[in-house]
Amino acid sequence: MQELDRVRYLIETRDRLIGLFGMVVEEVAPGSSRVSMSVHEGLLNTAALCHGGAIFSLADVAFALACNSHGTKALALESSINFIRPVSAGETITAAASEISCGKTTGLYTVLVTNNDGRPVAYMKATAYRFPERLPD
Amino acid sequence: MQELDRVRYLIETRDRLIGLFGMVVEEVAPGSSRVSMSVHEGLLNTAALCHGGAIFSLADVAFALACNSHGTKALALESSINFIRPVSAGETITAAASEISCGKTTGLYTVLVTNNDGRPVAYMKATAYRFPERLPD
Amino acid sequence: MQELDRVRYLIETRDRLIGLFGMVVEEVAPGSSRVSMSVHEGLLNTAALCHGGAIFSLADVAFALACNSHGTKALALESSINFIRPVSAGETITAAASEISCGKTTGLYTVLVTNNDGRPVAYMKATAYRFPERLPD
Amino acid sequence: MQELDRVRYLIETRDRLIGLFGMVVEEVAPGSSRVSMSVHEGLLNTAALCHGGAIFSLADVAFALACNSHGTKALALESSINFIRPVSAGETITAAASEISCGKTTGLYTVLVTNNDGRPVAYMKATAYRFPERLPD
Repeated sequence: MQELDRVRYLIETRDRLIGLFGMVVEEVAPGSSRVSMSVHEGLLNTAALCHGGAIFSLADVAFALACNSHGTKALALESSINFIRPVSAGETITAAASEISCGKTTGLYTVLVTNNDGRPVAYMKATAYRFPERLPD
Repeated sequence: MQELDRVRYLIETRDRLIGLFGMVVEEVAPGSSRVSMSVHEGLLNTAALCHGGAIFSLADVAFALACNSHGTKALALESSINFIRPVSAGETITAAASEISCGKTTGLYTVLVTNNDGRPVAYMKATAYRFPERLPD
Repeated sequence: MQELDRVRYLIETRDRLIGLFGMVVEEVAPGSSRVSMSVHEGLLNTAALCHGGAIFSLADVAFALACNSHGTKALALESSINFIRPVSAGETITAAASEISCGKTTGLYTVLVTNNDGRPVAYMKATAYRFPERLPD
Repeated sequence: MQELDRVRYLIETRDRLIGLFGMVVEEVAPGSSRVSMSVHEGLLNTAALCHGGAIFSLADVAFALACNSHGTKALALESSINFIRPVSAGETITAAASEISCGKTTGLYTVLVTNNDGRPVAYMKATAYRFPERLPD
């Protein structure tokens, strides 16, 4: 199995929030990824909008796929997210992660979350701590 | 019903991630709150540690209670979180939100997440956008 | 005088850190800008590298030009910056600001700082608070 | 010379922004510090308020003192700052840095900047990357 498929398979089968939120991994490439999620009633906050925790989780999974895509283990050290536009139940949102830099022990990624119309919903900047060990098979 | 009880009741009954993650609202006071969550197998990430999205969601709910505690509507504009120490299944973690400042249109909050031993697990800094309207009954 | 020239002139003549650090405004366009700075001995930190405060200030000026480029007053509400690569005395660094979104009361911007080789030195994500009033002449 | 005095002396003599901005190191203790700065006309931005770059630099120096206070080298990996209240020329502001956690390779710090009245002006959360090497004499 190729490295990218291995990483994707590992995360898709082990990351429990993918199933809990109903996320769909659309694409994984070296240093990038795309993950989508259909927002239903069960993901709303007090204002009846998609919960910030659900949007963060979607972006975090896209980030995890991107920063682990090189085949070695990486974890979030710090993540910062701006909530730009409200999302209602019935909408599908997509998180696209990109690599700004990838050093020996840390990496920097951005994740743009957009709605059906392609308009920005949220924007994350996240720092990965990179471990030397290879991801398990 | 008193203002704080009204806000707490509103959030506890409408915020769907509280139920999804099994959070327990421990306390709400003016500008602060405390929320706990028992971490089970269903909340783990690829590394078999509590998912960053679950920790963020817990902190975000504590933040929401704190910034809405004054009785008017507030939403997260931006949140930044550091992941300090891994959390395993079986642990209970608690998020304590505090108010740094509360202005006319924005407010600033910190949320410290600790484990059973009281050691820091995560630390969030979050900016609230404050709306003039009173929260609904 | 055109709006962009007016904003640029205003900031270039009033912002005192431009002169203090020896910054050069290279370009201002709607929602974006580019500012450069030659790093000399007087801007170093304890490790004899360009000071984080100097890099932040450069990125902040690029951000200010971009978020004020529409002609109405805007100020930083929150800024987050990653330091990616060390910068030594003798290098020239350039900050390029871009607009992610521009709403009624807030806006979101990123600023990529690169060195002579075009490699990333720092990356900022910043939230602007937008006031309704027009910038003074 | 004691460790804390050694670190303080090293930073005070080498960090060039301390002199450029006229900062005064008030105190250094294990994991914490306090630094003040008198805001003069030369530090203002376009809105005639203390420049965000000057406030960040003050907080960054307080952070540097705190995260290097253990005697080994540390640098900022990422810093996030909220600007809470405007500062005018003539005011003196003070940055107080505290340690949230200090691990083997990273540390987390907060810096509260207050004005003469003790009211919050800015709040920073910053991540340090910790190197194994001892600071030079």
